[in-house]
Amino acid sequence: MNDAVKIVRQESVGPSLPNGQAIAEAVRDRMFADDVASQGLGMRVDKVGPGYSKLSMTVRPDMLNGFKTCHGGFIATLADSAFAFACNSHNEVTVASGIVVDFLAPVYEGDALQAECREVALTGRTGLYDITVTNQHGKAVVVMRGRSHTMKGKAVVEL
Amino acid sequence: MNDAVKIVRQESVGPSLPNGQAIAEAVRDRMFADDVASQGLGMRVDKVGPGYSKLSMTVRPDMLNGFKTCHGGFIATLADSAFAFACNSHNEVTVASGIVVDFLAPVYEGDALQAECREVALTGRTGLYDITVTNQHGKAVVVMRGRSHTMKGKAVVEL
Amino acid sequence: MNDAVKIVRQESVGPSLPNGQAIAEAVRDRMFADDVASQGLGMRVDKVGPGYSKLSMTVRPDMLNGFKTCHGGFIATLADSAFAFACNSHNEVTVASGIVVDFLAPVYEGDALQAECREVALTGRTGLYDITVTNQHGKAVVVMRGRSHTMKGKAVVEL
Amino acid sequence: MNDAVKIVRQESVGPSLPNGQAIAEAVRDRMFADDVASQGLGMRVDKVGPGYSKLSMTVRPDMLNGFKTCHGGFIATLADSAFAFACNSHNEVTVASGIVVDFLAPVYEGDALQAECREVALTGRTGLYDITVTNQHGKAVVVMRGRSHTMKGKAVVEL
Repeated sequence: MNDAVKIVRQESVGPSLPNGQAIAEAVRDRMFADDVASQGLGMRVDKVGPGYSKLSMTVRPDMLNGFKTCHGGFIATLADSAFAFACNSHNEVTVASGIVVDFLAPVYEGDALQAECREVALTGRTGLYDITVTNQHGKAVVVMRGRSHTMKGKAVVEL
Repeated sequence: MNDAVKIVRQESVGPSLPNGQAIAEAVRDRMFADDVASQGLGMRVDKVGPGYSKLSMTVRPDMLNGFKTCHGGFIATLADSAFAFACNSHNEVTVASGIVVDFLAPVYEGDALQAECREVALTGRTGLYDITVTNQHGKAVVVMRGRSHTMKGKAVVEL
Repeated sequence: MNDAVKIVRQESVGPSLPNGQAIAEAVRDRMFADDVASQGLGMRVDKVGPGYSKLSMTVRPDMLNGFKTCHGGFIATLADSAFAFACNSHNEVTVASGIVVDFLAPVYEGDALQAECREVALTGRTGLYDITVTNQHGKAVVVMRGRSHTMKGKAVVEL
Repeated sequence: MNDAVKIVRQESVGPSLPNGQAIAEAVRDRMFADDVASQGLGMRVDKVGPGYSKLSMTVRPDMLNGFKTCHGGFIATLADSAFAFACNSHNEVTVASGIVVDFLAPVYEGDALQAECREVALTGRTGLYDITVTNQHGKAVVVMRGRSHTMKGKAVVEL
């Protein structure tokens, strides 16, 4: 974790500002270190970039609902974490104001889910993000659209 | 839990069919018994009725995100569980096809959340449900609208 | 139209500030006078109040789509106008940032639609509004949730 | 209009079935001929394909709301028409069950809008479609997600 932050700081010692990729990675390190919710669900942040993230999570027995399928809330939580890493990647504290989730296919115990988030639009303090959650067969099981609100002037991590 | 089931069974012994309230309670008992996801998050099903439910959950330390507020996914999961109990209350297996979540205010560790779900419309196999999540001060922190899809001919519990 | 504005002005001459109802009516008069879109579709603003509105519209032959039912866009437009009158009723210029529309039943030529809008929440600059569109039989044909954004410090009408 | 239908019929005379592109064009011709709502708003269907459409519309003075910007309902109507042409392109009668619209930037009189719709997912009778409306400067002004419901066994046009 601290390694990535150091890399950013090293770069910022030089004449050029840290680039977007390095900033996104520093934000990820800082956010994930404190994000006990995402950690507790076994999420991994596989990739980040400016306005982008890719997370993964394996469905555990304790994530199943009364119909023996994965509780939709946990899939939404994975997608919401991907949304958080992507919308904070520019290093301004950003919160979700709303999400729209479409459930396309059931998810079962042991499924290896991957959530990929891309920035659709960023106008003023409002951002829109699209997240697709796929299973280990590459099938889309959930799509989500997130609306974010940026708290101007508040950095996630000091660079 | 078992009490409610017994009441239903007693009623169904008689000449009249079990009423909507008793059916909703029998469905709740059956669903909640297997719903390890909702149980694991410490949810309580405080009340159910035809097209209705009220659940509660206290925000634990392991539900916090990197900003030390409750991960939005867990609040959505509480709302989604309320949605599930309400939309299955008519004893036909029903799944969420989509949810729309608006985050109104931050939620903190120790907050005692309550999610109340009401049926807005039920046409054919499609239902619409409104869920409001309030904190211990009665303040609405999340509102959610859920769209459900009923699998005709499949009962949640045999009555 | 001008009558309502005069009443407001008369009231504001006295010692008390114009009340919420009078403000909502003054805003309605000002907005509707310039709203050629809503006028052109034959909408009527039947009632307004603080955070509230009720509009009506009869489905004309030129509102039908290729399947001989009312184009969903026109029903959404009626709901969106109701949303605009309700969210501007506090006399601060407010715009829609997003709408979620659920189509529940088809609408036909000649149907007399009524859209009623209520404020669900108002936190900071963000408001949430629920709109229900019913037909002449009292059947809900569309439900919509609107998210609004208030431009602080800009009045719709000088009082 | 009739030309496209003829082309389809000529192709179907041969050994191969009409391809998806030809079907989409035949559906467009049939739907647009009766779609007086879209015609009345001056929409043009610039392109269709399987699960795809591109429409355009110029904002007229009669589309302006009380704030002298284009009424959001008309932009949603353009996006909804694009949605309809795309989701019916497989020649099964399909209706919108819900739409989610995000307004990103104001639209003014004379703006030349273009709505492009792509199929995101199609599972069973439910489809998801993403629509982006851009202005003449290529700026995204509205994004919409549509959920469709297919009436199995009903063709839009006989081929």
